[in-house]
Amino acid sequence: MSTLSVSLSRKELFLRACKGAALPRVPVWMMRQAGRYLPEYRALRAKHAFLEVCKTPDLAVEVSMQPFRRLDVDAIIVFSDILIPAEAMGLPLELGDAGPNLPEPVRSLDAVRKLRQFDPETETGFLMEAIRRIVRTAGTDVPVLGFAAAPWTLACYMVEGRTKEGFATVKNFLHSEPLAFRELLQRIAQATILYLKAQIAAGASAVQLFDTWCGELAMPDYRAFALPAVQEVISALRETVPVIYYTKASHHLLPAVAEAGAEVLSCDWRVNLAEFRETIGSKIALQGNLDPAVLFAPQEHIRQTTRGILEQLGGVGHILNLGHGILPGTPVENAQTFITTGQQFLFTETASGK
Amino acid sequence: MSTLSVSLSRKELFLRACKGAALPRVPVWMMRQAGRYLPEYRALRAKHAFLEVCKTPDLAVEVSMQPFRRLDVDAIIVFSDILIPAEAMGLPLELGDAGPNLPEPVRSLDAVRKLRQFDPETETGFLMEAIRRIVRTAGTDVPVLGFAAAPWTLACYMVEGRTKEGFATVKNFLHSEPLAFRELLQRIAQATILYLKAQIAAGASAVQLFDTWCGELAMPDYRAFALPAVQEVISALRETVPVIYYTKASHHLLPAVAEAGAEVLSCDWRVNLAEFRETIGSKIALQGNLDPAVLFAPQEHIRQTTRGILEQLGGVGHILNLGHGILPGTPVENAQTFITTGQQFLFTETASGK
Repeated sequence: MSTLSVSLSRKELFLRACKGAALPRVPVWMMRQAGRYLPEYRALRAKHAFLEVCKTPDLAVEVSMQPFRRLDVDAIIVFSDILIPAEAMGLPLELGDAGPNLPEPVRSLDAVRKLRQFDPETETGFLMEAIRRIVRTAGTDVPVLGFAAAPWTLACYMVEGRTKEGFATVKNFLHSEPLAFRELLQRIAQATILYLKAQIAAGASAVQLFDTWCGELAMPDYRAFALPAVQEVISALRETVPVIYYTKASHHLLPAVAEAGAEVLSCDWRVNLAEFRETIGSKIALQGNLDPAVLFAPQEHIRQTTRGILEQLGGVGHILNLGHGILPGTPVENAQTFITTGQQFLFTETASGK
Repeated sequence: MSTLSVSLSRKELFLRACKGAALPRVPVWMMRQAGRYLPEYRALRAKHAFLEVCKTPDLAVEVSMQPFRRLDVDAIIVFSDILIPAEAMGLPLELGDAGPNLPEPVRSLDAVRKLRQFDPETETGFLMEAIRRIVRTAGTDVPVLGFAAAPWTLACYMVEGRTKEGFATVKNFLHSEPLAFRELLQRIAQATILYLKAQIAAGASAVQLFDTWCGELAMPDYRAFALPAVQEVISALRETVPVIYYTKASHHLLPAVAEAGAEVLSCDWRVNLAEFRETIGSKIALQGNLDPAVLFAPQEHIRQTTRGILEQLGGVGHILNLGHGILPGTPVENAQTFITTGQQFLFTETASGK
């Protein structure tokens, strides 16, 4: 067995995986790893509202560190919400038990043009401060991840407001006023570039773009609207840190998703990683992709399924993760089994498995 | 232009399309065409609860006929709910504004074995009576469609009960007790066969199986569980009427979906029909696939998008439909534009479009 696994820090491991390297073991973390399945998170949330946690660096740092301390994950993602930039652009934001609500949605060119660019360091300084403190607390050996929504997905929330039945409102805006909608995407893209650059300046080792709702679009609209906007963000970050682009239920879009320019594509469980690698080659690293529902299954099933995913890429350019955020109610010991299985699965130099 | 379009009844048109024929024009209907977007439906529902409408043939017939009278659609689907068989198998059913609820979900082998087979003609006779009356009312020239959930999708509701966050409960059942889960699917399949045969005996010209949630599964689980169960249903109906198999967000499953044995595959808007036809050949007819959100767009955009779909298959083995149920709030005149555009788009004998 290689001694590389001992000599590499978690951050080196993570960044090499982003670059497509073959590694003795893959880095492992979980989307929404700071969340409701952890008793210590629920205890803190019993005393503090969701947005209060996002906007209070002490609390955001504590919650971000919880999964690292308990589960020994290989990356720490800062606790925040993808709608924070929407609020900073001028939209009132409510995050309640019924899900997020933007009571003044953007549904006209006028409303688009009223959106303001914001200064991330002063207006969302709580997030940058949280990242700086996490970096100090975790030390230089651990990668800290920043994130934002991809433009299309943030636009969905900004236009729909609360309900998303069929995404009819945002699609109607797109079809009825394509130029205004494109301007919305561009404004979001510009704001997102500054927002992510500030996170990188604060110490983020990599950033992830969440395109949770891109799968609602058919290919022509994805190519015409969502893709150029996310390409704009990614290309502006090219000389900084690796960008991970997460898409959900996007199997019909994968050839275009691969053109986004991201170093890493984060896939849900519907994608066979081996087949996708064969299609796009090994220049793009892949992240994922255990179905979070599998974390409710018996331990042996979790181990088997996780190993099956690891074998698909043979440790080459792979960050092990879930295919979507960890679900509330997930048994903590099952999350631990997933993390440990990933970390203990060693690849030989021929990358032929354990 | 061929005179065939004049001489063929709607039913002949529909059945020929199911058989893969090239037609002078394609038949058109809409999933959930009897529904909340129609003022006459809302007026009736203001006086009668959803389940009351399903179980009262007078009301079910009236609601089923409404879109035929108003929009001149080419097929009438009987008004009912996919959860009716769950109730008939022994599960209490509540259909409220918050969506369907099965307060006694099936989560063990014991619960699976307590499910009863039911006699469709006596225990869900209201549906068979509604079909008979629709057939009498509409006459022999109009196809009347029956339907049921595909086994996996009904199992999702039966196991989850109300919430479906991540479909964790049903997937946990599948992974933890695969034999018990398979027995559940088989019992559903057996009940569904009798239920659909009764609908066919009552006069249904074709039946549709709704697999709304198959897209939640990755390919291995779809092949191991959902597919065999739906194949069992379809093969039992082979000598009767055409079966239409609807799947949603199933792009990653399409090669397996094509093996279900259905005469017609009903696709959502994420599928490029021309590409799918090229993959599976012209022996399987296709139904779909306008994004129902497009019905909120300007009329010209609706016409253009609809024509684009029609051109993909050139009138060969195609039933024009939406990619998912019509959304509440859809302007009726836009639904009409969709139907009329489909019916007026004529194909020449070379199937090259108009």
